[in-house]
Amino acid sequence: MTFTVAVSGASGYAGGELLRLLADHPEFEVRTVTAHANAGQPLSAVQPHLRGYTHLTLKETSTETLAGHDVVFLALPHGASGAIAAELGDDTLVIDCGADHRLESEQDWADFYGGDFHGTWEYGVPELPRMSGTQRTRLAKTRRIAAPGCNASTVALSLAPGIRAGVIEDRDIVSVLAVGPSGAGRALKAHLLGSEILGSANPYAVGGTHRHIPEIQQALRWAGAAEPTISFTPTIVPMSRGILATSTARIVPGTDAATVRAAWEDAYAGEQFVQLLPDGQFPRTADVLGANTALLGLAVDEAAGRVVVVAAVDNLVKGTAGAAIQSANIALGLAEATGLPVNGVAP
Amino acid sequence: MTFTVAVSGASGYAGGELLRLLADHPEFEVRTVTAHANAGQPLSAVQPHLRGYTHLTLKETSTETLAGHDVVFLALPHGASGAIAAELGDDTLVIDCGADHRLESEQDWADFYGGDFHGTWEYGVPELPRMSGTQRTRLAKTRRIAAPGCNASTVALSLAPGIRAGVIEDRDIVSVLAVGPSGAGRALKAHLLGSEILGSANPYAVGGTHRHIPEIQQALRWAGAAEPTISFTPTIVPMSRGILATSTARIVPGTDAATVRAAWEDAYAGEQFVQLLPDGQFPRTADVLGANTALLGLAVDEAAGRVVVVAAVDNLVKGTAGAAIQSANIALGLAEATGLPVNGVAP
Amino acid sequence: MTFTVAVSGASGYAGGELLRLLADHPEFEVRTVTAHANAGQPLSAVQPHLRGYTHLTLKETSTETLAGHDVVFLALPHGASGAIAAELGDDTLVIDCGADHRLESEQDWADFYGGDFHGTWEYGVPELPRMSGTQRTRLAKTRRIAAPGCNASTVALSLAPGIRAGVIEDRDIVSVLAVGPSGAGRALKAHLLGSEILGSANPYAVGGTHRHIPEIQQALRWAGAAEPTISFTPTIVPMSRGILATSTARIVPGTDAATVRAAWEDAYAGEQFVQLLPDGQFPRTADVLGANTALLGLAVDEAAGRVVVVAAVDNLVKGTAGAAIQSANIALGLAEATGLPVNGVAP
Amino acid sequence: MTFTVAVSGASGYAGGELLRLLADHPEFEVRTVTAHANAGQPLSAVQPHLRGYTHLTLKETSTETLAGHDVVFLALPHGASGAIAAELGDDTLVIDCGADHRLESEQDWADFYGGDFHGTWEYGVPELPRMSGTQRTRLAKTRRIAAPGCNASTVALSLAPGIRAGVIEDRDIVSVLAVGPSGAGRALKAHLLGSEILGSANPYAVGGTHRHIPEIQQALRWAGAAEPTISFTPTIVPMSRGILATSTARIVPGTDAATVRAAWEDAYAGEQFVQLLPDGQFPRTADVLGANTALLGLAVDEAAGRVVVVAAVDNLVKGTAGAAIQSANIALGLAEATGLPVNGVAP
Repeated sequence: MTFTVAVSGASGYAGGELLRLLADHPEFEVRTVTAHANAGQPLSAVQPHLRGYTHLTLKETSTETLAGHDVVFLALPHGASGAIAAELGDDTLVIDCGADHRLESEQDWADFYGGDFHGTWEYGVPELPRMSGTQRTRLAKTRRIAAPGCNASTVALSLAPGIRAGVIEDRDIVSVLAVGPSGAGRALKAHLLGSEILGSANPYAVGGTHRHIPEIQQALRWAGAAEPTISFTPTIVPMSRGILATSTARIVPGTDAATVRAAWEDAYAGEQFVQLLPDGQFPRTADVLGANTALLGLAVDEAAGRVVVVAAVDNLVKGTAGAAIQSANIALGLAEATGLPVNGVAP
Repeated sequence: MTFTVAVSGASGYAGGELLRLLADHPEFEVRTVTAHANAGQPLSAVQPHLRGYTHLTLKETSTETLAGHDVVFLALPHGASGAIAAELGDDTLVIDCGADHRLESEQDWADFYGGDFHGTWEYGVPELPRMSGTQRTRLAKTRRIAAPGCNASTVALSLAPGIRAGVIEDRDIVSVLAVGPSGAGRALKAHLLGSEILGSANPYAVGGTHRHIPEIQQALRWAGAAEPTISFTPTIVPMSRGILATSTARIVPGTDAATVRAAWEDAYAGEQFVQLLPDGQFPRTADVLGANTALLGLAVDEAAGRVVVVAAVDNLVKGTAGAAIQSANIALGLAEATGLPVNGVAP
Repeated sequence: MTFTVAVSGASGYAGGELLRLLADHPEFEVRTVTAHANAGQPLSAVQPHLRGYTHLTLKETSTETLAGHDVVFLALPHGASGAIAAELGDDTLVIDCGADHRLESEQDWADFYGGDFHGTWEYGVPELPRMSGTQRTRLAKTRRIAAPGCNASTVALSLAPGIRAGVIEDRDIVSVLAVGPSGAGRALKAHLLGSEILGSANPYAVGGTHRHIPEIQQALRWAGAAEPTISFTPTIVPMSRGILATSTARIVPGTDAATVRAAWEDAYAGEQFVQLLPDGQFPRTADVLGANTALLGLAVDEAAGRVVVVAAVDNLVKGTAGAAIQSANIALGLAEATGLPVNGVAP
Repeated sequence: MTFTVAVSGASGYAGGELLRLLADHPEFEVRTVTAHANAGQPLSAVQPHLRGYTHLTLKETSTETLAGHDVVFLALPHGASGAIAAELGDDTLVIDCGADHRLESEQDWADFYGGDFHGTWEYGVPELPRMSGTQRTRLAKTRRIAAPGCNASTVALSLAPGIRAGVIEDRDIVSVLAVGPSGAGRALKAHLLGSEILGSANPYAVGGTHRHIPEIQQALRWAGAAEPTISFTPTIVPMSRGILATSTARIVPGTDAATVRAAWEDAYAGEQFVQLLPDGQFPRTADVLGANTALLGLAVDEAAGRVVVVAAVDNLVKGTAGAAIQSANIALGLAEATGLPVNGVAP
């Protein structure tokens, strides 16, 4: 059967990527695309790369335009999705690509976002190890899904296997990320201008202020961490897409390298979209460009007493839109990989 | 007075950058440029951006062509400088931009480089804090200088003040770097092709194998570290030049944020080429492009118990050629900043 | 029915892109991948982004390994495909992504390539206007196809409609192209290093020496040109993929702007993969990244007496691998668009 | 003697580059920097790469803050400089980096800019060939200089020698440029965002609408053209700075290749900042990054009957700020090259 689909926020980067991926999904039919400032324009005027959608015009984002679809993807600014979702029927599958429903802790929400707390939906990272099993089972049959923060899910997938297996400590984790500017969306900000981005690496949110930190800690607690601490620093580098996350954690004393590695091998042995590379190999972001794949490489640094996990993810695909569709597939009982590319566009 | 200068390895990136900087140095006169495979060619055929040197032709690299100059810069592959330097007179100022004379420990050399140990020269990072004073005093009047590894000096400058002041621990340091491919030189390697580099972030030497690790540890010991450990991961990002090093270390328990920050402020208060940005500001690599400046930003992450220092350096200038010239100025008794740019080329 | 497929040159950029696209083709099954220097290695060691092919190992390129497939794609260096093709059965569909069989004129071959002339196969650009109809009809049922040169087909598609309609002159055409370095393949050449490509625009083959010139002229003659002349200059710019071709031709005096535009509108009215943008819109290469789409924008410059056509193409897709698969679909009687993406990966 | 200097528009890209270059100028002392929205801020907050100016604070742009300096550089939006200049004394040297005073023809101004016509100042491209001599002589002792449009001066320098020597025709010139986004300034526009610029080539002002067209035609008329026509297309490519202009013109029939080449050789034989590369060599924009150098390569394409001139210029230096300072040097009777770099920052 075919599910009818609406995409709100279709003029943004996440919305555009949802549409690009949905074009190849055999069970979904995009009926409605909505936007805010660009409502009324042809979609192709705003997303000229989406040549398969030249028949669509952007409508206003409202419960009226979104109602009546089987699946509604929300790619809206933070704080905008709660009210809309409340108006959509309980049998409508709603996937929120914003942050509103990711956090369980009202205190975390207050500390890092502020404003009204919107409640918690199922977290859209199927492969994420939990103390028993994975996040996947929680997504089956739910009708409310919170697509992950791109940086948060990349780091969580990088470290959760070690936490669950008890081979790494949850204190004193360090993650440094090289990320493309598309993760910041289409906002007109001076530091996102091409002239500022080209030829330069730019840190931001240094020193523990990034909003994805509590999301990472929450995921690590799901895997068994008691009270994880993480030093988290993202840096914008000159590639439009991609996250290369280098995460390190202290190895539990007395654990040998093979045991460390086995924790990740076991966690992702059966996964199609989260793959651990062979020993000595490490991923590049180009390897996952446009693909719903998270590629991990792992090294044990005995001198430093740390494991180093390098993860490559396309922030707009496995980090956002691909995760949303993968989770929707699960919730609807479709084959999980339906319509999702595994091969990157390289070079 | 004017000092005569020879630059060997003038067809490489470090050699080219030495020449670019030397062109604006009022006390140095480049008389001789040498190369290996490109000997016999006009310099401008190999370094077409050096329009001020169109009169020079590359000679063979040999003691004959290098002898008779006041200053000789060696920008040669590892292992090539020792024999040449031995033949140059003791009164010739020799600055080696290669790794041969950086390490004090023969064991470190054996572990990370291998082959004959070449002995140790004065390390060319004047601002580097030592237990008392700085490296600067050791450079005065020496005639043998080892220019630093670009990644190593960037990380060392980032953390040494905290070590010397006793505000950070020397165990469990983590550094992750975004670096441009010019740091790898002009070698014809598949992973350095433009098609592979563009649009991608690529890790290398993951897990404690990078040759700059012992060099960092040595510099931290000079600042007072007992037995420093460091998890060090460089990633190549799509910018031709630049290092953005994110380094974190555990704060000694009980040290407040102001005390932490004061360690760096004190260390670099009088420095022209190593500057700590005001609280809340962090550097971009574009800010130091083409300049002999290391820009540092610092944050105290109390939740993580770590200080985060982000440093931006142009790997070819403050990381290599600029450090070499700055050190040469000191050794010759010139004003330290002679001929060295402090402003970056941005955007 | 499913056609069995072999891809030779699978370790190169064109070969890799064939495999990426074939992964989504429902009627093709890749059985064999071959290479030269990399034979014996797992495909994923050389093409780490192709996560869906981790079961394949590269074999030697030979008639033995290639024989017995329904379809053979050759992505080999110039001069290597003729001998292999001769050994494959006449009923095998062979698509050559190299230049060996593109040119009809033995003199052109001698002037621009040299060496043995290999004969001419059907040119794999279905939409190319010919004096009557399009190239498409020639591809039906052929078993030998020459995939186009990426620059050549981009320029030919840009100008052939105007030639056929008689609205532009065939003398004094000028084309200047911004191209990504992947068009030059994976060759280890100093000017293709990332450090040389990043932050720079680099011309090459200036002054009428590029090998795609006779291929363009040939295509324009097919559209009715008598003796076309073209000033053709490619410049490498810092993007891994993509061609942005700016082509101008003199408008036949007395032709009004609407008539000029109509020539292109008519030529591509029914085409899915070659699209003329509305008046005033022009394409970006990002719009076609990873897609089999050629996007054209057209302006009439009355003061200059010239039409300007700007075309964006992904050199590896519509410029090479996508064109090859599209042509193969036609030759095999499949729906022409089978397995080919029309939406670009942007931003 | 030292001249006191004020720079208005110091928070923009042109203003920043003026300051970077003036820092190395031994005869100029920057006393005042002014801005509009950023007035009141420390200069280093807006231009963090200018580490040598941390003592300066941005003042309001007004005749009060600018008066009393020997030299005033105006880097303001179009239309803003006329009124200010009128208030500054006739003995103040005023260099306008905006477009207000470049065009001689009030009709051209009306057609391409609109609004009040501001009159014409001496054009700041000293090397530009005129029917007799160069533009240089007109700059001596003037107190009002219009710095050139970056694209316009690049194309004018590319073709004027051939016009003056009578070896190329002035009808049917074609120029296509690959340019970095910094030429568009720091304006917050969606198409200038890093995500849009990275990995893509984007045309703009296609079809004869770019404001630099009449400026080019004016310069060619100065060299002897009667009624030049030019098809001019700029494309933004992913490099922060730089112009690579490919310009072609029809060779006057009967002119041999050596005669063509000699026109350019003669025109620039004595020039330090405009250099013609040897036959067969062509410039890259990286070769002139940060330098006041225009590098030209020239080929005669006999089959096409055209000369092709490829020129590389840093839009912010030789294209704007360097041209302004070079012209100021001439006007003040200083050595023309004072304080201006000739070597590019590469790689």
